[in-house]
Amino acid sequence: MDGYPGRPDLLIVNGTVLTMDKEGTVMENGAVAVSGDRITSVGQGTEVDVKNAALVIDAEGGIIMPGLINTHTHAAMTCFRGLADDMELMTWLNDYIFPAEARLTQDRVYTGSLLACAEMMLSGTTCFSDMYLFEDAVAQAASRAGMRAVVGEVLYDFDSPNYGPIEKGFDYTLGLIERWQNDPLITIAVEPHSPYLCDPDLLRQAAAISEQYDIPLIMHVAETAGEVKQIQKTYHKSPVAHLGEIGVLSPRFLACHCVAVSDADIELFKAYDVKVSHNPESNMKLASGIAPVPAMQAAGICVGLGTDGPTSNNNLDMFMEMDTAAKIHKVNLMDPTVMDAPTVLGMATIDAARSLGLDRETGSLEPGKKADVIVIDTRKPHLTPMYNIYSHLVYAAGGSDVRHVIINGVPVVRDCALLSFDVDGVMDQMRQIAAEIRRLHNWTAGGLNGSANQKKR
Amino acid sequence: MDGYPGRPDLLIVNGTVLTMDKEGTVMENGAVAVSGDRITSVGQGTEVDVKNAALVIDAEGGIIMPGLINTHTHAAMTCFRGLADDMELMTWLNDYIFPAEARLTQDRVYTGSLLACAEMMLSGTTCFSDMYLFEDAVAQAASRAGMRAVVGEVLYDFDSPNYGPIEKGFDYTLGLIERWQNDPLITIAVEPHSPYLCDPDLLRQAAAISEQYDIPLIMHVAETAGEVKQIQKTYHKSPVAHLGEIGVLSPRFLACHCVAVSDADIELFKAYDVKVSHNPESNMKLASGIAPVPAMQAAGICVGLGTDGPTSNNNLDMFMEMDTAAKIHKVNLMDPTVMDAPTVLGMATIDAARSLGLDRETGSLEPGKKADVIVIDTRKPHLTPMYNIYSHLVYAAGGSDVRHVIINGVPVVRDCALLSFDVDGVMDQMRQIAAEIRRLHNWTAGGLNGSANQKKR
Repeated sequence: MDGYPGRPDLLIVNGTVLTMDKEGTVMENGAVAVSGDRITSVGQGTEVDVKNAALVIDAEGGIIMPGLINTHTHAAMTCFRGLADDMELMTWLNDYIFPAEARLTQDRVYTGSLLACAEMMLSGTTCFSDMYLFEDAVAQAASRAGMRAVVGEVLYDFDSPNYGPIEKGFDYTLGLIERWQNDPLITIAVEPHSPYLCDPDLLRQAAAISEQYDIPLIMHVAETAGEVKQIQKTYHKSPVAHLGEIGVLSPRFLACHCVAVSDADIELFKAYDVKVSHNPESNMKLASGIAPVPAMQAAGICVGLGTDGPTSNNNLDMFMEMDTAAKIHKVNLMDPTVMDAPTVLGMATIDAARSLGLDRETGSLEPGKKADVIVIDTRKPHLTPMYNIYSHLVYAAGGSDVRHVIINGVPVVRDCALLSFDVDGVMDQMRQIAAEIRRLHNWTAGGLNGSANQKKR
Repeated sequence: MDGYPGRPDLLIVNGTVLTMDKEGTVMENGAVAVSGDRITSVGQGTEVDVKNAALVIDAEGGIIMPGLINTHTHAAMTCFRGLADDMELMTWLNDYIFPAEARLTQDRVYTGSLLACAEMMLSGTTCFSDMYLFEDAVAQAASRAGMRAVVGEVLYDFDSPNYGPIEKGFDYTLGLIERWQNDPLITIAVEPHSPYLCDPDLLRQAAAISEQYDIPLIMHVAETAGEVKQIQKTYHKSPVAHLGEIGVLSPRFLACHCVAVSDADIELFKAYDVKVSHNPESNMKLASGIAPVPAMQAAGICVGLGTDGPTSNNNLDMFMEMDTAAKIHKVNLMDPTVMDAPTVLGMATIDAARSLGLDRETGSLEPGKKADVIVIDTRKPHLTPMYNIYSHLVYAAGGSDVRHVIINGVPVVRDCALLSFDVDGVMDQMRQIAAEIRRLHNWTAGGLNGSANQKKR
C-alpha cells in the first residue's frame, strides 16, 4: 500500500478495486485503508497488514469502488411515490402533487427523506443532491442517516408552504448555511426552482449568495420544450441564454435536466464551465425528451447523473439510472459506441462529485479523499463470470448487489443491512403518513389498483 | 375461496393477490391454493383453511402474482456476458461473438443455460422462450432447474456448430419434438433465425413443422433498418411482406424485435394474428431502434416482453425490462400516458403467455391454470408506502424483491434462495468456462478493464 503511517481504523480487503482515478486504475486483489474519515491508501492486498487494523471488511472477491453520487433528487417525495403515474404533466402536478405538497410538514419531509436515505444507501449511493421544501429536515435526515448530502431550499416567485414569501426564503437559505457550515456531511446550496418560476431579481440574488459563500447554485433548466417556448415568449431568448444574460452562470452552477438545449446553449455552458445533471429516467417517464449528453460531453462539459425524485422515476437506484443512461443515447443517436460503460460510471462517481464541487472530497478512491466506499457482491448468477468490470456494473448489476457501504469512514451498511437507524420504524411512520395523505385527499376509493390513471385490463 | 374440493398441496396466504385476469382483479388479504401442478382457487384469505394444507407459504403482506414470462432470450450467452460491449454490431459479432460461439459445446450450453435459469428464477421469471444452439441442453437445463421453457434450435442456411447442414437441423428439431413431447415444463418450437439468414424453402419447411405439430414458429424479424434494406434488395419487399408472401405467417408465429416495421407490416401481422416479442433494452443497447409497440397494440396485436440474450442487455431481469418498456415509448412518442403500468405488466405475464401459445396454462392466477406464482417482498424502503400495485411493480420494484417462486406447483425459490440445484457449483463451472474462453481467444491481455472497446478514463 502507498504507506500512510499509523494504524488504520478500517481496512477493506480482498476485492477488485475500481478507483475511478484519472488513470482508470483497477487493481485485482486490492485493498483500501481508512483512518478517521479519510482514505489513507489504496493498493495491492498482499501489502496489507490485516492484523494492524481496528476493523477489517472482507469484500470476498467482490468489487470495491467509490460510492455513487445522485446529483438531483427530491428525496422526501417518497411520501408520494406511485400516487399518480402515466399521466399528463399538468394533471399530475395540479390534481395530485401540488395538493399533496401543500399539506407537507417538516416532520413528513424528515421521515420521507430518511426513508429515501435508506433506499439510496442500501443501493450504493453515498451522496445525494436534494432540492425540496423544508430542507433543514432533509439535512437532519441525511445527518442522522450518516449520508453525505448537498441540500438547498427550493426558491420561487410565489409563496412557499415552508417559509412563505421569497424574502423569507433567502433568510431560510442563509440560516441553513449558518447552521450546517461546519458539518462533516452536509453542504448547503442555493436552489432557485427554474427560470420559469423565478424572476431575474430572485435569480441574481441567489447567484450572489452562491458567490459570497462559494456554494453550488442548483436549478432546473430547460427540462421541456414547453419551458423553452415560455421563456422565449417572456425574454425572447432560450432559458440558458437568459441565464447568461442576467449574469448567473458560473462554474458553481449545476443545471438539472437540460433536455431542450441548443448547440449555442451548450457553448454558453462551456464558456462559463457550468455543470449539468442528467436525469434520463425521469425525462423518459414524463416524456420530457432526451438531453443531448454526448454532445455536451464532447464539448467538454462535466455531466453528472441523477434520478430526480421518486415520483417521476420511481426509484432512487443509481445502477438502474446508469443502465438507462448508457442505452437511451445509443438508440437516440443510433450509435452503439456512444456513452460507453466507463463514461457512464464516471457520471455516477467522479463527474458527479465535480458537478457538486465535491471532487476534492469524494467520487474516487484516492488517498486523502473522504472514505465513501461501497462493496459489490459478485457471487451472483447474473454477475458470473466477469470479463469486464465496467460493463458488469453498468449493464448487469443492480442496487441490491451492494453488500457494504462506508460513508465518511463509517460503515453504514453491512451485509445489506442498514446500521445507522431503525428503517423498520421509519417504514411504519411512512405507512401512517400515506394513510393520512389518502384520507386528506379522499384518494381511498379505488384501492391499490384504482387510481384515476390506472385502467383495468 | 372458489371451492375446489380436496386438500391443497400448497397455500400461499397473507398477500395482495394480483391476478392479471381479464377483469384486472386485485385482492387485498388474498390467497392462492394449489393442488398438484395447478391452481385450484384464488380468493380472500379469510376463507382459507390453513390447517388443511400440506405446505403454507406466508407472503407476509407482500404481493402474490403470476410469474413473469421472458418471450425471447438466448440463455446460454451467459458464457459471454460483458465480453464485448459498446461497439458496432458487426465488430461485436465478427470479432467476439461468432468466434466464441464456434467453440460452443453441449456442455457449455447446458451450464450457461442453468446459470441463466438461476438468474431468471431468482428475479421472478417462471417461463422463458429460448433460441440458440444445442437446444436439447437448454431443455435439459430448464427441466433440471424446474423452469417452464419454450425452446427451439436455431436454423439457418449455413452449417451449424451443433447439427451441421440444415437438413440435419430439421432432424434435430423433430428429435426435440419427439423427446420432449410429454414433458410438463418444456415446449419445443421451430426457430429459423431470420428472413435474412434463411431462404424461403427453409422458412416454408419450418412453418410446415410448426403447423403439423401445432407448435410456435419463432423468428427474429425486422430487427434493424439494415435488415429491411437487405431484404428489400433481395425480395423487393419488406421482411414482413416477404414472410406473408411465402406463406409462413400464422397465429403460431412469434416475431421477435420488429423494430423496423411499417403500418402495412402491422396490418399484415394483425391479419394473420401474428404475435410479437418486444425487446427494448437490447434494441437500445445495440442501437437497433425503437419498435412501434403502442401502434401494434392499438392495432390489436398481442405483444409480449423479452430481454434478448445476456450479451445484448446485459441482464435477464424482467422487472428492469418492464421499467424500460414503459419509459422508452413515452419519450419516443412524447406522451406520458402511453404504455401505462398495467399494460406493461400484461406484456410480461398474460400477453407473454398468449404470444407463446401458453395462455391456457400460465400468465395469470386463475383456477385451473398451472401454478406459476411469485411473491414480492414489499417490506423495503423503495416499496413503502404502496399507493398503486401496478406502478410499484413496473417503476419501483426489481428482480431482487422476489422472495418466493413456485413453478408448476413446485416451490423452486424460498426466501430468495434457489432450491432446485446447486447454483454455487454452476457458478464455479462457469468461471472455468470463462477462463477457457479467455485462453482460447487470447482475450487475457487487458484484464478486467482492458477490453478493446473500453477506453480508460
